[in-house]
Amino acid sequence: MSTENLDISRRKLLGTVGAAGAAGLALGAAGGAATYATAAGPAGTALATVGSTAVPFRGTHQAGILQPLQARGHLVAFDLAPGAGRKEATALMRRWSAVAERLMAGEPAGDGDTGVALDAGPSSLTVTFGFGASFFDRTGLVARRPAELDPLPAFSSDRLDARRSGGDLWVQIGADDALVAFHALRAVQKEAGAAAKVRWQMNGFNRSPGATAQPMTARNLMGQVDGTRNPKPSEPDFQERVFVPAGGDQPWMAGGSYAVVRRIRMLLDDWEKLPLERQERVIGRRKSDGAPLTGGGETTEIDLDRTGPDGKLVVPDNAHARISAPEQNGGAAMLRRPFSFHDGIGTDGTPDAGLLFIAWQADPRRGFVPVQRKLDRGDALSPFIRHEASGLFAVPGGPGEGEYVGQRLLEA
Amino acid sequence: MSTENLDISRRKLLGTVGAAGAAGLALGAAGGAATYATAAGPAGTALATVGSTAVPFRGTHQAGILQPLQARGHLVAFDLAPGAGRKEATALMRRWSAVAERLMAGEPAGDGDTGVALDAGPSSLTVTFGFGASFFDRTGLVARRPAELDPLPAFSSDRLDARRSGGDLWVQIGADDALVAFHALRAVQKEAGAAAKVRWQMNGFNRSPGATAQPMTARNLMGQVDGTRNPKPSEPDFQERVFVPAGGDQPWMAGGSYAVVRRIRMLLDDWEKLPLERQERVIGRRKSDGAPLTGGGETTEIDLDRTGPDGKLVVPDNAHARISAPEQNGGAAMLRRPFSFHDGIGTDGTPDAGLLFIAWQADPRRGFVPVQRKLDRGDALSPFIRHEASGLFAVPGGPGEGEYVGQRLLEA
Ligand code: HEM
Ligand code: HEM
Repeated sequence: MSTENLDISRRKLLGTVGAAGAAGLALGAAGGAATYATAAGPAGTALATVGSTAVPFRGTHQAGILQPLQARGHLVAFDLAPGAGRKEATALMRRWSAVAERLMAGEPAGDGDTGVALDAGPSSLTVTFGFGASFFDRTGLVARRPAELDPLPAFSSDRLDARRSGGDLWVQIGADDALVAFHALRAVQKEAGAAAKVRWQMNGFNRSPGATAQPMTARNLMGQVDGTRNPKPSEPDFQERVFVPAGGDQPWMAGGSYAVVRRIRMLLDDWEKLPLERQERVIGRRKSDGAPLTGGGETTEIDLDRTGPDGKLVVPDNAHARISAPEQNGGAAMLRRPFSFHDGIGTDGTPDAGLLFIAWQADPRRGFVPVQRKLDRGDALSPFIRHEASGLFAVPGGPGEGEYVGQRLLEA
Repeated sequence: MSTENLDISRRKLLGTVGAAGAAGLALGAAGGAATYATAAGPAGTALATVGSTAVPFRGTHQAGILQPLQARGHLVAFDLAPGAGRKEATALMRRWSAVAERLMAGEPAGDGDTGVALDAGPSSLTVTFGFGASFFDRTGLVARRPAELDPLPAFSSDRLDARRSGGDLWVQIGADDALVAFHALRAVQKEAGAAAKVRWQMNGFNRSPGATAQPMTARNLMGQVDGTRNPKPSEPDFQERVFVPAGGDQPWMAGGSYAVVRRIRMLLDDWEKLPLERQERVIGRRKSDGAPLTGGGETTEIDLDRTGPDGKLVVPDNAHARISAPEQNGGAAMLRRPFSFHDGIGTDGTPDAGLLFIAWQADPRRGFVPVQRKLDRGDALSPFIRHEASGLFAVPGGPGEGEYVGQRLLEA
């Protein structure tokens, strides 16, 4: 009865709904987020778009990769419990898929729903699942472990905390409402039951919808426009850069992607002391609007060869935007879809804040790894950041009708 | 030059703005938040209401008490630096007032602005300042210390962490955008300069605007509708309950209010195991819509005397809504304006989440204290919560034209 009650109360709010129209995609184009038609309920109420936007659970790709950045995010990694193996993992992925589908549609989690999301619509909730390299040992599926999951190399600037790194399983939750996101986090934890234990958990955030006049590229906590040069779905090589094609070594990963997760602390006390001009030379772009230092607007192509009156490169040798550009890395590219984090004040008295960097790519060995290698050697940003935790997860394609996430791995 | 650039870029976004219209007030009525007219900028853009809402810095009361709950909040307490006294505190309050006024109007903080709030409007930002009891010793103003600031009594259920309690100075920051709030937090910290050091800092959140179809009473992380019976500005005793009248012992506090701040951890792993019916009896209200267990809707009066067919009270003896009601406490009332908090997973493995409880009242000895005394003795909620930190701050009235916050204390 409890679930029913909650269910009715929430449905009433949604009114008579039907999927309609594709929401604007911050990434540049292409769909993935359906919006409930603004529906007049019995009391003449209409859910605002922020709440009413629902992202489909099923599709070629899992949700949470192509959708616009959400205002609130939770990352949580689990380890399978001692004794749990393939059977328990299979049951877990079934349970998680079922609950994710319900929640993303704006329905209660099931019996004993906490009620935290009541009144609100789905608020663009996405729940995304991935598998770490250790998952394959634990489940006897080593033969199906993709080579793409080989451990990331150690980088000289790494200051990684093993307890906040890795994990058999990874769940990314994003929503435009903090209570909807928290509700989903608790539901996912509850469904883990005895099968898996939380290994680490992180919270993040981005701009609230409507805080800017129109959708704009995100800013990070250093104040920079961040995401400008992300691959765009409209570009011809977008799919092959971000998603695993069919016909590869591991057929179960077709339509999937690899997520590199790095908790990157920003040394803000130092950064904020740097004059604006020097901050801009660290990136190679203007802070105000993200335009290249070589001129134009945010989307103007950066001219890496241009020299100034002093004969020096306008975009410095070690500028982050130079070193990380695909042109400088044999075409290596990734889709960065981060959350900022801020966990108050660290034990050292400086802000425990930065970027929950999440990079999506078809193969980290042709995405994150070569770029980070280069950044590690000479990025002007390095003195102002610190990689504190790391994860690499295989995120399978989206579930088809009647499927659960990971079924093609676990039941093939 | 740096500030100018940022300034122009942000003004452009705001278009030609003018204060217009009073925003809806979740508390029930009465104004305080002005909304910029939705203005067509050069590119035909219009700031969405979420971003464009600006709260006036000056007024009878400080901002951040009567405004609707914001989606994101920061609480930060400072201690005056060793050697700093009244002179330094005065200069600090001037600096803080100046920066708060700029930020609340959507302007950059000043030279060296971090840029984190760029692109966004003021997003209902409020910055509220208070003084702890220790402030008066430090500044030689003991004669002006209100008796209302006498230490809160110890309660048997207190589990207070002194390092996260108290403080000479307290700043409450709220905004509907997380980056706007973070930007303000950093600006406030920067302006503290050598005069004051951060003592503790906490982050919180509430619903995002637009997540529900229309403005609704908040929910907390236990899933309850929370705030229903708050005093309403339309009620005749609202002013005298919440704000200090003119003509009192401490004239500088006229128009001010006392903030009791409690970090209340929720023992969610235990709470969520409780069946819905038992959860509802803990509060005395329905979880789905906040209606009293004695029937009706959210705003129906609760019938504390009603018994059921079994002869027992429908709203149990120890129900939170019974024990905390003004009728049971000689009229004691307070305005609760909280943020939820969630700092990941605690050292004990349970969620470090709960309520940043903030209660506003003209006198805590006729507000928080008697109610908490009663709750401490027999609240059905007690087994599921833990008071982990505490603060009590004198929040002076809002600054008049040309004044800074606290001027009537520091310069009288
Ligand atoms: C806190 C750490 C970091 C900050 C603050 C940061 C900031 C930025 C900024 C401001 C830009 C320019 C705007 C844009 O195109 O998005 C950028 C570009 C980029 N960054 Fe980072 N970044 C960080 C870490 C990383 C890491 C760890 C990698 C990958 C190893 C990375 C890869 C890239 C790439 C590929 C680009 C686009 C370059 C292009 O296509 O031209 N960044 N970053
Ligand atoms: C995490 C801790 C707490 C939770 C979850 C909580 C929850 C609630 C809920 C659900 C209600 C009923 C709806 C409403 O009128 O707002 C309520 C009412 C109330 N609570 Fe709490 N509360 C907490 C702590 C406190 C504390 C510490 C105090 C003060 C000492 C307090 C004072 C009140 C008052 C005055 C009311 C309104 C009663 C009335 O006027 O009828 N609460 N609370």
